[in-house]
Amino acid sequence: MPTETSLAARLLQGDKRALARAITLVENDDPRGWELVREVYPHTGRAAVLGLTGAPGAGKSTLISSLTKARRAQDREVAVLSIDPSSPFTKGALLGDRIRLSDHFLDPKVFIRSMANRGALGGLSEATLQAALLMDAAGKDDVFLETVGVGQAEIDIIDHADTVVLVLIPGGGDSIQALKAGVMEIPDIIVVNKADHPMTDTMVREVRSVLSLGEHEKGSWRVPIVKTEAYRDIGTDELIEQLDKHRAYIQAAGQLDERRSRNLRNEVLALTTGRLRRRLDAALEADAGFQELLDQVVRRQLDPASAATRVLERLDSGDLRAP
Amino acid sequence: MPTETSLAARLLQGDKRALARAITLVENDDPRGWELVREVYPHTGRAAVLGLTGAPGAGKSTLISSLTKARRAQDREVAVLSIDPSSPFTKGALLGDRIRLSDHFLDPKVFIRSMANRGALGGLSEATLQAALLMDAAGKDDVFLETVGVGQAEIDIIDHADTVVLVLIPGGGDSIQALKAGVMEIPDIIVVNKADHPMTDTMVREVRSVLSLGEHEKGSWRVPIVKTEAYRDIGTDELIEQLDKHRAYIQAAGQLDERRSRNLRNEVLALTTGRLRRRLDAALEADAGFQELLDQVVRRQLDPASAATRVLERLDSGDLRAP
Repeated sequence: MPTETSLAARLLQGDKRALARAITLVENDDPRGWELVREVYPHTGRAAVLGLTGAPGAGKSTLISSLTKARRAQDREVAVLSIDPSSPFTKGALLGDRIRLSDHFLDPKVFIRSMANRGALGGLSEATLQAALLMDAAGKDDVFLETVGVGQAEIDIIDHADTVVLVLIPGGGDSIQALKAGVMEIPDIIVVNKADHPMTDTMVREVRSVLSLGEHEKGSWRVPIVKTEAYRDIGTDELIEQLDKHRAYIQAAGQLDERRSRNLRNEVLALTTGRLRRRLDAALEADAGFQELLDQVVRRQLDPASAATRVLERLDSGDLRAP
Repeated sequence: MPTETSLAARLLQGDKRALARAITLVENDDPRGWELVREVYPHTGRAAVLGLTGAPGAGKSTLISSLTKARRAQDREVAVLSIDPSSPFTKGALLGDRIRLSDHFLDPKVFIRSMANRGALGGLSEATLQAALLMDAAGKDDVFLETVGVGQAEIDIIDHADTVVLVLIPGGGDSIQALKAGVMEIPDIIVVNKADHPMTDTMVREVRSVLSLGEHEKGSWRVPIVKTEAYRDIGTDELIEQLDKHRAYIQAAGQLDERRSRNLRNEVLALTTGRLRRRLDAALEADAGFQELLDQVVRRQLDPASAATRVLERLDSGDLRAP
């Protein structure tokens, strides 16, 4: 495929349009996208991948805009990938986010992209990693992955990152409650944004008390709490400093390699299982016997687990096989 | 297995200890648990299954305690299943929750149980359905599933419910933001708890504006907003009324059967895929070739998607097969 070879070549030279096209291919699950990732994969592993999560309205996009400015001042190239949730309600909010990043649209060394949820979060998680790999291959020094939400699924998506930042705001109580209840794992760095709010110090104290409960968990890395006012670039320098410190720490401790190995292993398993599931869906779609099984389950004649056993038996016997 | 047959018989008679033991079997993935669900499955489908979600601290347990009191006054039997997140931090919070429910511990017609996260949320989601089926078979009229968190994964767990209630509190901004951003699907009923808070009406207005955006989404069911002060049983009667209304609506519209069919279909697929994944894990664990593939991925010689393709090829050729 000579055309795609040249797409790979252009991507590796940092061509913005080639990168945009490559991500579209991956997002559409186009085989040429996967082929491209295969080709450029040996050139990945160099970028510092940062994941940011937090409730909508916490100011993540503004913070990313400020971080981008700071990294550009250090002459580093930046890519931003925003993971959009699937609802039709989002359009307004996300348009607003894009506007906050518009300062950087014309900078050829900054690449900004949002990616929509294509149904299952698992699928999106895979597409996220592929897109991050493409950005890495295109020579970006910093890749910012942004996701909206405060549940474990959102954390799973940014688990592809080397460093995870949770963005909180004073008064935004649910995220801190989720941390406290252990719904969410402790991130590497916590930002309290909109720190001009009168409740800021209360929030910082609360975060500190949650962290003190889990101090043994994170080994010797002490999770820093950074106060920012992102729209005025206040606190960004301290955040940059903490990001670099965390990176130096995980590199020295061998944790960067360990994290990446673990993430890559999970990725291979997730991709394999995902494909097995798609095969299964396709096989069952065309299979009248499966519909009959389901009808029995709905009529309470056959329980779901026994139905699953029968499906597996049919798969094993070769009665049911996807093309 | 005569012992387990009698366990099934005792369960069907509503024996509390038999139900507790049955759920433990399911939770431990004991084959006798699955066998038991198979046996009692024809006796399920009668209970009204209610799912409650919301951030920690929103007062879900207090609300469930109040709902339990109201349902008991109607002479209905109640089961409560709290899905606990996996963190070690949770213990304190959950102990507190149990205490709120302690009024009902001695009532033989009320069954209260919490279930811990066994790693993957998918696995927990399956165990949740099995436990709910057991409660249903034991003759509970109302099954309350409670989960902590405000992400999509938490909603997936309570998607086994016939009716989903989201519990918000005034000032707890993240959940409403998650709704607004479409991170979370619109539930069937929204409760604003702790309604003695001065910000209550602001919260109700915000919720109403989010709902007005999505009105076309839910068809002709208008999502009601119920204000409660659960610790004083205020608003509980109105909530009960709305719950019964919603149930009547989905029954009349044929949606109850539709929801249940869809959920059961997804359940069969999830169980099948889960078992395929466990087989895969076991096969790969014992396979030196897989470790070599992973090492190549970590050394950036082979990309994750190509590694997944090779794993599938090995599975298909029969080189790799779980016992």
